[in-house]
Amino acid sequence: MNTATPSKTPSYDALSSAWLRLHRLGHLQNIAGWDQAALMPSKGNEARGAAMAEMAALMHRLRTEPQLRDQIDSAEQEPLDALQRANLREMRREWRHANALPEDLVQRQKIATSRCEHAWRSQRPANDWAGFVGNLKPVLAIAREEARLLGQQSGLRPYDALMDRYEPGMRCATLDGIFGNVRQWLPGLIQKAMERQALALAVDPVGPFDIERQRGLCNRVVTLLGFDFEAGRLDVSTHPFCGGVPEDVRLTTRFRTDDFLPSLMGTVHETGHGRYEQNLPRTLLGQPVAEARSMALHESQSLTFEMQIGSHPGFMALLAPMIAAAFGDQPAFAADNLHRLVTRVKPGFIRVDADEVTYPAHIVLRYEIERPLIEGEIEIEDVPALWDAKMMELLGVDTRGNFKDGPMQDVHWPESLFGYFPCYSLGAMYAAQWFAAMRRAMPDLDSRIAAGQLAPVFDWLKSNIWEQASRWDTDELARRASGETLNPSHFKAHLEQRYLGG
Amino acid sequence: MNTATPSKTPSYDALSSAWLRLHRLGHLQNIAGWDQAALMPSKGNEARGAAMAEMAALMHRLRTEPQLRDQIDSAEQEPLDALQRANLREMRREWRHANALPEDLVQRQKIATSRCEHAWRSQRPANDWAGFVGNLKPVLAIAREEARLLGQQSGLRPYDALMDRYEPGMRCATLDGIFGNVRQWLPGLIQKAMERQALALAVDPVGPFDIERQRGLCNRVVTLLGFDFEAGRLDVSTHPFCGGVPEDVRLTTRFRTDDFLPSLMGTVHETGHGRYEQNLPRTLLGQPVAEARSMALHESQSLTFEMQIGSHPGFMALLAPMIAAAFGDQPAFAADNLHRLVTRVKPGFIRVDADEVTYPAHIVLRYEIERPLIEGEIEIEDVPALWDAKMMELLGVDTRGNFKDGPMQDVHWPESLFGYFPCYSLGAMYAAQWFAAMRRAMPDLDSRIAAGQLAPVFDWLKSNIWEQASRWDTDELARRASGETLNPSHFKAHLEQRYLGG
Repeated sequence: MNTATPSKTPSYDALSSAWLRLHRLGHLQNIAGWDQAALMPSKGNEARGAAMAEMAALMHRLRTEPQLRDQIDSAEQEPLDALQRANLREMRREWRHANALPEDLVQRQKIATSRCEHAWRSQRPANDWAGFVGNLKPVLAIAREEARLLGQQSGLRPYDALMDRYEPGMRCATLDGIFGNVRQWLPGLIQKAMERQALALAVDPVGPFDIERQRGLCNRVVTLLGFDFEAGRLDVSTHPFCGGVPEDVRLTTRFRTDDFLPSLMGTVHETGHGRYEQNLPRTLLGQPVAEARSMALHESQSLTFEMQIGSHPGFMALLAPMIAAAFGDQPAFAADNLHRLVTRVKPGFIRVDADEVTYPAHIVLRYEIERPLIEGEIEIEDVPALWDAKMMELLGVDTRGNFKDGPMQDVHWPESLFGYFPCYSLGAMYAAQWFAAMRRAMPDLDSRIAAGQLAPVFDWLKSNIWEQASRWDTDELARRASGETLNPSHFKAHLEQRYLGG
Repeated sequence: MNTATPSKTPSYDALSSAWLRLHRLGHLQNIAGWDQAALMPSKGNEARGAAMAEMAALMHRLRTEPQLRDQIDSAEQEPLDALQRANLREMRREWRHANALPEDLVQRQKIATSRCEHAWRSQRPANDWAGFVGNLKPVLAIAREEARLLGQQSGLRPYDALMDRYEPGMRCATLDGIFGNVRQWLPGLIQKAMERQALALAVDPVGPFDIERQRGLCNRVVTLLGFDFEAGRLDVSTHPFCGGVPEDVRLTTRFRTDDFLPSLMGTVHETGHGRYEQNLPRTLLGQPVAEARSMALHESQSLTFEMQIGSHPGFMALLAPMIAAAFGDQPAFAADNLHRLVTRVKPGFIRVDADEVTYPAHIVLRYEIERPLIEGEIEIEDVPALWDAKMMELLGVDTRGNFKDGPMQDVHWPESLFGYFPCYSLGAMYAAQWFAAMRRAMPDLDSRIAAGQLAPVFDWLKSNIWEQASRWDTDELARRASGETLNPSHFKAHLEQRYLGG
């Protein structure tokens, strides 16, 4: 600094610098992680795993430097404005999580998950459950250790302690109520929706669909949805995700030649994540207060894009001519048929391919398995039988012996993302709540979307969600955006309106 | 360690761990640097530059930790085997270079070069010399500071101090002799070769050449040359290079639709770099002794691939059917015509497109400009006039006003790689020396290449160069491989044999 006036907030300034450094090192880690999933050749994996483990350990050391505790305490006494105070609150939260974990655990976890995830890529197609279990066991053992340590430090039960990393404030006690309620009405709604849809069957698209043409279509739709390709990319990976950094967002998708809709709608989903990241506030970028609020909030953006906008009849009318231009015309490409296709309710094995009605069943199932798994009530060997029973109970499908489309289908457990799954359904609930709030503010919203006017939706999201980042806790953000905290009845009402008729 | 026996080499072990950590962090830096050049969208550059500068500063801190000096001194007294002793020698060399530079300089350099390189990407096509100078000035100022500091520490003159980072042991005094000699015979040889070639003109290929087909052809040729695609990739960047890490080598090329040969031969060139990296010894990987010996040695591999193998008449006979399969048959694709095309001598503006006869003229010119530039005898404003005069003198071409194909053509100055250029021609000289040694050991070498047997060449390179890594200093490596230290007469003999006839 050139000025001779000493800073009135020396501790806060020091913390700010420390977090900016973490943001920069995290940039390299995120790009290397994206590369590992999207581009890296197989023999590079061991070295990449070692490099990323080294970086994770280094960042962990930076988050646990002894002076941080005193600096956070001193900064509380400094004359901070409201935004700085919110930033300090988020710093303390991150600091608490990081300081509950020894560096050794962080490094062991990185190595175990890197090995498990890489092996999973070939074990899953081979349906090699036994091989997978061998790699998942050390991942689970470390996750239990992590949950215990985080719980000791926060006073939370083990699963809550893990979930709190992704969804601050969410607890099993709340979730048991929400998911317990969903369990009551969901199977009936699925049944009724399927009976109703049997009266007007959708026409299936006829492939094959050229992958380069699918890629071109995805790029055009992502552009239509406002994603900035000068600040991001769209590539291919086994499991689609949104990675990179807010300044350079890396979306991925995957293509099949027999159908284009799963890839297209998956891309629309990731675009919602991407626009949230691209529109986080640039003031204080690199500070925790400028980061996305939570994973459920993140999912509320991807699901706003995929389900609220993407499956909207008006949006399908916009896509219909783009799809016909990509693949030539087909009866299946009529707008009303496309809408029938993307809203078709059909119980299936795969979570990421599930429609929005059956999707919560996949999440309830995973929650009911991973919570007792983390809390030591069951072991990995118990998972297949539980999986089979719950899939039959919730969705009426038989998964016995089909590990690859069962408990091996997701990258989450290999990557030790226990406690993450609930965020998907919480996100769907928030997305319905945002759209209900938008409709109250803009009663003509649906006709505007049908007329191709997406800007009002983006503007609402930008000012109410994206630019708010982590300024407020999740309840306060929801109240400011929609007048109430999480209210799952909007989600139920959305499904009833769309699938059982208005 | 599980054993109760204490290590007899505690200092060496500590150094080993420190360098392994640097190798792992460098892995992330290298992948991020490759991504920046090959994939990154433009708006990501500022954040990437800041992230890589942060990492460079961090690695610099690790290389300058105070205990390293004592550890290196103590390790000298420990009972090391020959390989460990060679490793310690290389550690000391790296340590000396790093400790001559303050962290502040390293970080300023990273920011200045990142900004200059990124702007250069659009300034070069716009021929915007004035804009380029504005960004290059701070890069040069920092490079002069660096040269002075390195020189103070080593007792070398400033340019020697910079060159020593890339080519340990090489000095201006030697180079002035070598390049002075080249200056004497090269213009005459160019003239005679052109006169001779005028008697049997090459037929030009007729484009356009589909880029996907070029990409497929390049992949097949790179595979023929033994590159392991399970441990590397081939992508596109503005300036082709070989990046990544030994475990995951990232080659890049660039495509034009009007011709495929520059891209193909450029890819063959980078493949030579790539195979050197992929075949470095795995024992002690991550340690300096397991790294490539020097930049001239690296270039000796790329030029062995591009010029000695790639432009060999026998190799052209192998490529001819692959080229015809990619693009359909043409008169230009006859093997003898392809050989005429890749050995066509034609003075031009662009170094990377230059044939092997005119190439050294580009290097002599750059050396004669960047040495006085670094040593403060001239300024950036003097470069265009010098460039124009020397291009006319050495190659007889007029470059006035054409900055983009003149001093703006290379990425080296924007990236502050002063002292690097000489390595290209030293590499060509070593490559000729290696091939002369191979011919002495295998008198039927040329007929074996013509029969498609490339394995003997790869075997020789693997055992004499690749697997030796940095075990010996460059002179000793050359003596062991070829019976003598650098002897430029092999290069002259190679050119005379190929271009003036046997």
